[in-house]
Amino acid sequence: MDGQELLRCERIAVSLAFEAGLMMKSASGRNKEISEKDSFADLVTETDKAIEKFLFTELKRQFPDFRFIGEETSAGVGLTVDPTWIVDPIDGTMNFVHTFPFTCVSIGLTVNKVPVVGVVYSPFLSKLYTARKGWGAYCNGQPLSVHKSCKSLNEALLLCEFGNQRDEEKRNAVFRNLEAVGWLSHSVRCVGSAALNLCCVADGSADAYWEFGLHVWDMAAGSLILTEAGGVVMDTKGGPLDIMSRRVLGACNRNIADELGRALPIHLELERD
Amino acid sequence: MDGQELLRCERIAVSLAFEAGLMMKSASGRNKEISEKDSFADLVTETDKAIEKFLFTELKRQFPDFRFIGEETSAGVGLTVDPTWIVDPIDGTMNFVHTFPFTCVSIGLTVNKVPVVGVVYSPFLSKLYTARKGWGAYCNGQPLSVHKSCKSLNEALLLCEFGNQRDEEKRNAVFRNLEAVGWLSHSVRCVGSAALNLCCVADGSADAYWEFGLHVWDMAAGSLILTEAGGVVMDTKGGPLDIMSRRVLGACNRNIADELGRALPIHLELERD
Repeated sequence: MDGQELLRCERIAVSLAFEAGLMMKSASGRNKEISEKDSFADLVTETDKAIEKFLFTELKRQFPDFRFIGEETSAGVGLTVDPTWIVDPIDGTMNFVHTFPFTCVSIGLTVNKVPVVGVVYSPFLSKLYTARKGWGAYCNGQPLSVHKSCKSLNEALLLCEFGNQRDEEKRNAVFRNLEAVGWLSHSVRCVGSAALNLCCVADGSADAYWEFGLHVWDMAAGSLILTEAGGVVMDTKGGPLDIMSRRVLGACNRNIADELGRALPIHLELERD
Repeated sequence: MDGQELLRCERIAVSLAFEAGLMMKSASGRNKEISEKDSFADLVTETDKAIEKFLFTELKRQFPDFRFIGEETSAGVGLTVDPTWIVDPIDGTMNFVHTFPFTCVSIGLTVNKVPVVGVVYSPFLSKLYTARKGWGAYCNGQPLSVHKSCKSLNEALLLCEFGNQRDEEKRNAVFRNLEAVGWLSHSVRCVGSAALNLCCVADGSADAYWEFGLHVWDMAAGSLILTEAGGVVMDTKGGPLDIMSRRVLGACNRNIADELGRALPIHLELERD
């Protein structure tokens, strides 16, 4: 796929993300239909479904040959080398239900299983994060850069999530990891959106983020935005990030990434996307 | 103090909060002088000090007979029945240092030791929260209301903080409390500003918040904003909130407050402000 085609993909994704954001705003605080998925803390609303349907329809119309993975309708279809749109209609559904402002639409495009376009739009924070592979990352049109000068965990602001799983293994991993690394750092913030966590490291407002249990639609766009902003994404044990692996570690530089990865006592192996 | 005088106090506090917010914005990302206070995670910047000096000077000029408690210059002076301005120039200094957007200026006024005016302004989130005792609470001029219909912890979004203390007793309390109540709820968010936590419960974007170790300047304004929005503030064990007690529990209604207070296994008794 050449540069012009990538640019076209990015522009269409931005335009659709804005429309999705308007749908989120107009539905905010009026959740008529909320359903539980895997636990009482794993929710989906009619708005998640409506936005995914809208994005799916529009992307299919403009890219009839591309594949599509969406949180609400096509989990588990697998990632191939074909161009694939990977969409989370609302990343931070729990926040959306509660009108807590950290929610976004996340639209990523992979080619040969590698993210090449990433668009994350947060309508309540009025932030549009964009990246094309090789062309840098932007927030509201301004170039992004990570907090390069962060030297060690004890001057880092970390991000993590409690997550919506409630099984004993996951609960234990969340707390043991948090207890092991939280006190080594400046502090820890938990805002409830994986895509925005990656974007916060990209824009320098946080220094590192780790999570176990997230999905490919949570990280396809954000991982590209972070690397294009000069940051690092990797497997939590080091080595290349596998976006289907359900785990991620993102950081402002390699030193912080390695120090955080080594400090985490538990690395969950979860069923792949 | 009559209604007209209270209104005058609120207007002046709003005007000063906006100016303080401009000072925060213009200094953001350019922290030349950062000092550690009680731990490597307890920071103060030149901007905290400059804003407190500005607020102190202006309030003294317009209210020469009032008393004044400010985080950076007059901790430990004690609260009396006299009208007292209680100021945190930057609530969320750690976030400010990292350009994480949850920071605010907090200006409260107490009379007879009770908050009667509260102003919390977050320049990076563009949110101005205000309240006068008996007159309701507002965000950007719109009336605020808590999430009244929240019935129990298992449908609540909770807020708490890791805090900047690093002693063993505090660390243990944070984790044991979080582990005890976190999994009972929809989820937990940690954003790094006590005043904004109280305001998030006030505006319905979260349902309850607890913290041990905060100070009177962190809660004087926010506690009024929450009660004027229809919410509850209390001691973590129940009973009236003592704003000098270094602990707070705020919730969208009495049921949630009581359920959360009962579920916390550890209630730290800290040296009073």
